Amino acid sequence: MDLQVRRLSNLRSLVDAESTGSDLIELVRELFPICRSITGDGLRQSLAKVAELLPLTIHEVATGTEVFDWTVPKEWNIRDAYIKDAAGSRVVDFLQCNLHVVNYSAPVNARMSLKELRPHLHALPEHPDWIPYRTSYYAESWGFCLPQRQLESLSDGEYEVVIDSSLQDGSLSYGECVLPGQIDDEFLISVHICHPSLANDNLSGVAVATALARVLASTSHRYTYRFLFVPGTIGPIAWLSRNQAAAAHRVKHGLVLACAGDRGNINYKRSRRLSADIDRAVEHVLRSKGAPFEIRDFSPYGYDERQYCSPGFNLPVGSLRRTPHGEYPEYHTSADNLEFVSAGHLADSLTTLLEVVDLIESDLRFINLSPMGEPQLGRRGLIGSVGGKAAKSDQLALLWVLNLSDGNASVLDIAERSRLSFDQLRGAIEALTACGLLERMPE
Amino acid sequence: MDLQVRRLSNLRSLVDAESTGSDLIELVRELFPICRSITGDGLRQSLAKVAELLPLTIHEVATGTEVFDWTVPKEWNIRDAYIKDAAGSRVVDFLQCNLHVVNYSAPVNARMSLKELRPHLHALPEHPDWIPYRTSYYAESWGFCLPQRQLESLSDGEYEVVIDSSLQDGSLSYGECVLPGQIDDEFLISVHICHPSLANDNLSGVAVATALARVLASTSHRYTYRFLFVPGTIGPIAWLSRNQAAAAHRVKHGLVLACAGDRGNINYKRSRRLSADIDRAVEHVLRSKGAPFEIRDFSPYGYDERQYCSPGFNLPVGSLRRTPHGEYPEYHTSADNLEFVSAGHLADSLTTLLEVVDLIESDLRFINLSPMGEPQLGRRGLIGSVGGKAAKSDQLALLWVLNLSDGNASVLDIAERSRLSFDQLRGAIEALTACGLLERMPE
Amino acid sequence: MDLQVRRLSNLRSLVDAESTGSDLIELVRELFPICRSITGDGLRQSLAKVAELLPLTIHEVATGTEVFDWTVPKEWNIRDAYIKDAAGSRVVDFLQCNLHVVNYSAPVNARMSLKELRPHLHALPEHPDWIPYRTSYYAESWGFCLPQRQLESLSDGEYEVVIDSSLQDGSLSYGECVLPGQIDDEFLISVHICHPSLANDNLSGVAVATALARVLASTSHRYTYRFLFVPGTIGPIAWLSRNQAAAAHRVKHGLVLACAGDRGNINYKRSRRLSADIDRAVEHVLRSKGAPFEIRDFSPYGYDERQYCSPGFNLPVGSLRRTPHGEYPEYHTSADNLEFVSAGHLADSLTTLLEVVDLIESDLRFINLSPMGEPQLGRRGLIGSVGGKAAKSDQLALLWVLNLSDGNASVLDIAERSRLSFDQLRGAIEALTACGLLERMPE
Repeated sequence: MDLQVRRLSNLRSLVDAESTGSDLIELVRELFPICRSITGDGLRQSLAKVAELLPLTIHEVATGTEVFDWTVPKEWNIRDAYIKDAAGSRVVDFLQCNLHVVNYSAPVNARMSLKELRPHLHALPEHPDWIPYRTSYYAESWGFCLPQRQLESLSDGEYEVVIDSSLQDGSLSYGECVLPGQIDDEFLISVHICHPSLANDNLSGVAVATALARVLASTSHRYTYRFLFVPGTIGPIAWLSRNQAAAAHRVKHGLVLACAGDRGNINYKRSRRLSADIDRAVEHVLRSKGAPFEIRDFSPYGYDERQYCSPGFNLPVGSLRRTPHGEYPEYHTSADNLEFVSAGHLADSLTTLLEVVDLIESDLRFINLSPMGEPQLGRRGLIGSVGGKAAKSDQLALLWVLNLSDGNASVLDIAERSRLSFDQLRGAIEALTACGLLERMPE
Repeated sequence: MDLQVRRLSNLRSLVDAESTGSDLIELVRELFPICRSITGDGLRQSLAKVAELLPLTIHEVATGTEVFDWTVPKEWNIRDAYIKDAAGSRVVDFLQCNLHVVNYSAPVNARMSLKELRPHLHALPEHPDWIPYRTSYYAESWGFCLPQRQLESLSDGEYEVVIDSSLQDGSLSYGECVLPGQIDDEFLISVHICHPSLANDNLSGVAVATALARVLASTSHRYTYRFLFVPGTIGPIAWLSRNQAAAAHRVKHGLVLACAGDRGNINYKRSRRLSADIDRAVEHVLRSKGAPFEIRDFSPYGYDERQYCSPGFNLPVGSLRRTPHGEYPEYHTSADNLEFVSAGHLADSLTTLLEVVDLIESDLRFINLSPMGEPQLGRRGLIGSVGGKAAKSDQLALLWVLNLSDGNASVLDIAERSRLSFDQLRGAIEALTACGLLERMPE
Repeated sequence: MDLQVRRLSNLRSLVDAESTGSDLIELVRELFPICRSITGDGLRQSLAKVAELLPLTIHEVATGTEVFDWTVPKEWNIRDAYIKDAAGSRVVDFLQCNLHVVNYSAPVNARMSLKELRPHLHALPEHPDWIPYRTSYYAESWGFCLPQRQLESLSDGEYEVVIDSSLQDGSLSYGECVLPGQIDDEFLISVHICHPSLANDNLSGVAVATALARVLASTSHRYTYRFLFVPGTIGPIAWLSRNQAAAAHRVKHGLVLACAGDRGNINYKRSRRLSADIDRAVEHVLRSKGAPFEIRDFSPYGYDERQYCSPGFNLPVGSLRRTPHGEYPEYHTSADNLEFVSAGHLADSLTTLLEVVDLIESDLRFINLSPMGEPQLGRRGLIGSVGGKAAKSDQLALLWVLNLSDGNASVLDIAERSRLSFDQLRGAIEALTACGLLERMPE
């Protein structure tokens, strides 16, 4: 076993912050115009784009399939939608921005007065220039979204209202990329890919997950990685219902990625278990990075971690994001656009994720083979032979690793207790293993 | 089982703060003039008053009965007591205030000089107008209590000193009111009823316990409630020695009530177990109320919780009071009078107690019947079907209850972890139970 | 068993701070000039001095003996050493200060230029008047130490360089003093005695340990005390390898003493177990003393506690010191001299240690023989019989001891929970035991 606690050097050498940032933003840009939903061709097109970059299996789950408490809904597709005024001009036009239509709207083709139309129009009085993003899944309905200013300027005449959509039996699509590792234990990365033209929520997550998968596909690793590109809520529920055994027995660590490209600090939400390895790993990485961050306890309100952390599964899945959904004004509006995300912040999210993966990969247990008293480090060249000076700070790592490696403590346990960084311990572990003082515990 | 987590509505509808306050103060007023002690007719008269309001069983334990380390003492009764000056006028007169006699004083009938009398006189130099309250249980003695100013004005002549009391074989009395519930598990409420004309300590406790028992007698409840009206120390010891099995096996929660009518904030002293259900319930109620309060750890110095929390029993019994005994200057003096307690504060103590009872009654365990993934709340009308907006805060209760109801967590556990109030969770639990998503765990 | 929780009065009566302080400093002064090392006659001479004061067994472990990962090194002895300038005068002279020679230097006798000599010269640029202390154990080498100012003044000519030392097969010496107590369980006190003319590190520790052993030798005690006077690192390793069973099974508490005479506050480093009895005992003593102090968690960087706390032993051994080694500028220099330590601080270290010993000796478990309700203290004369006044603070000790003495809690447990001092509890325990309410639990 040559993979010990060395950094997965490929991971990081493959990531050059600047070019990676532009790759990430490029993928966001490509996916941005597509009108996605929780089912339908927009979702399939987006998965196809990702599949150009990854070995992605695309699964289709037929409408009507029961997945736990839910039923896979009809497939939604849309070609066009608009509101035309009396003069025949499109005052609201889906082709200009797909947010203009309430996502999952049933078809409509009618003439009506503003008064009749009004209950179907959604706007944001507090942000009069932004188009809100609204959905009507699981309850047939229709509507349009538009800026408040535009809403207010509509005159009283009659309007032609057309939504050329279809809601028909079909299937729900999701993408899955499994990268086998040395062991069957899995690290799950899940992103939702159902939102239409919204950049941060969650094309940022899609792009970062794709980039991580590409890095991992190009290097060897201990864990098996499973990437899920799923429509929100119904997607992970469908996957869980079709993969109960894998979920229950194989997933040892997991992260839901969302809102990974805005300018906020990294914000981590713990899994329902609160102190699972993934929770402790992310916290250690964030503390070591030095940049400001925030860690929150689990709450059942959020994104797809809700499903993985439901009581029947209780998987160790946390959520890594920058500004949490709903906590920035641009959230679920047309202002969550390509300007709202930055290449640098996307790259920073990816780098953080790589650090977490790197730590989890290396979080092994070792045993001190010379546990009675301290072994003589001097004759092994591990410390200077002229004594009398204060020990250097890098000696501490050797001493902590020896002192705590009783077979119970993992590297992260040692890092936490010693308050040394995981990286400081890596070198000590390699040196001690090389000279026969330390041995990796069988898993 | 129709009793779930709904509020015991009778509990609260029966309590109209204003009229309840006046009922409470009325009972304090009626009991105030009686000269109680740890045995004797004053105690019996007081229990008889309470028995007019409650189904109270009055127990008599004969003098000489051994109760653990103690022996039931002689019965004390008093008819009159005074100090007459040379002119024959009563300068100290028990008939004017029963605090003038050291409680449990042996009979005396003598003439003596002030010098001889002086060691038997007790006053409070720091509060020269107040009469102190003193007792001489378990060690025969006699004495008088009087204001410092009066003590200083006594002239040197001879005095006639009479205490027309008796210390004879008889019995110790205590009252017990058991209100059977759906289960045999008990909630114990204990108040001491041995102090003479002192309003806050502890006629306030007697009145609040009586009112609570009346409310509970008029409604159905899960727990069996046991109310004890006992002389301090020897009373609970006598009860414990005669009810060891009940104490050890049935009492699941308990409170000692004392000093419940002064103008201070609510102050709770935890049981010896520190985090028993009763301790957590009171803390949750106090935090939810919003008013200032204080919580203290258990200490073996206090009132009758000392007995319930002795190491041989270690019952989950805390103590609910306003200003703790000994921490207000009026404590154990004639200034602890009817003006010292207020109807509003008595009613607030009762209301707080009702909230605690209400919480304990409803602190059940439920199980999420759809634990794999999140159930679809939308089609059950539990959340709005137009998505895209931030969830409302009352949705959180639904989500937390579903997420944590794995059969291990009680409602209070969920309240503590979610930081939602117990009341916010009640509605969620009812709604989820009604639509079949949640089921109460058998006890 | 007459030894209960009474203070070991002899302990303290034998210690009169002023005269003790001068005894302590006197021993430091006597030992100061000797050139000690980890082996050799200087070490033996020092042990012989201690043996004049204590029943000390001196062990010799032959060169070449394997002790765990180490091998006992050759014995080092030195007679003379100097650097002579061209004029034949000794510019650096071991006979003036033994720090001038790198400890454990191999013999040398040569003429060389300053350039050749220079790599063998050690000085402290930041403290130009001090001689550093350097060692070269376990790697043959030689060198001289001198003040930076002197180093700079050396002219370029040729020098005669002589170290008249020997490195030969011999033995490593250490001293052991065992003071049997009533039980076989041991309290270990370990000090290193290998440093040459350095006062605080660690003649201070040697002097304090010697004084403690003298006090304990003159009184009866419960624990068996084992004092080790050992060369650093190799000493405790040799002892551990020859006493594995004793170490593993008998040592219940232990302290490494070092740097016990400087003017800093007491600083305690917890054992690897972090909350062993010794850790809690030292913390309680320091909190009760009132003087400023610092407590640190265990770290594997330090003195001989590293060996006792290695994972194969994990003994409950903390380290008591004043300013920790390496944290004062005089550390390991000629400025750690007789002026650097004070009689008062040495005596304070001894007194603190005595308090710790006293607490550990008395940290027994008792059981309340009247655990059902509170026993009647009044009739036993333990509290005043006239009730109604607030209990005096010394009653609290009686009540806490009774309430918590369920056979599980030790006196220290009671002290920690009650926030009373250990000393306040002693009197209560004696009084309750005397009247038959409390009984010591068999060990």
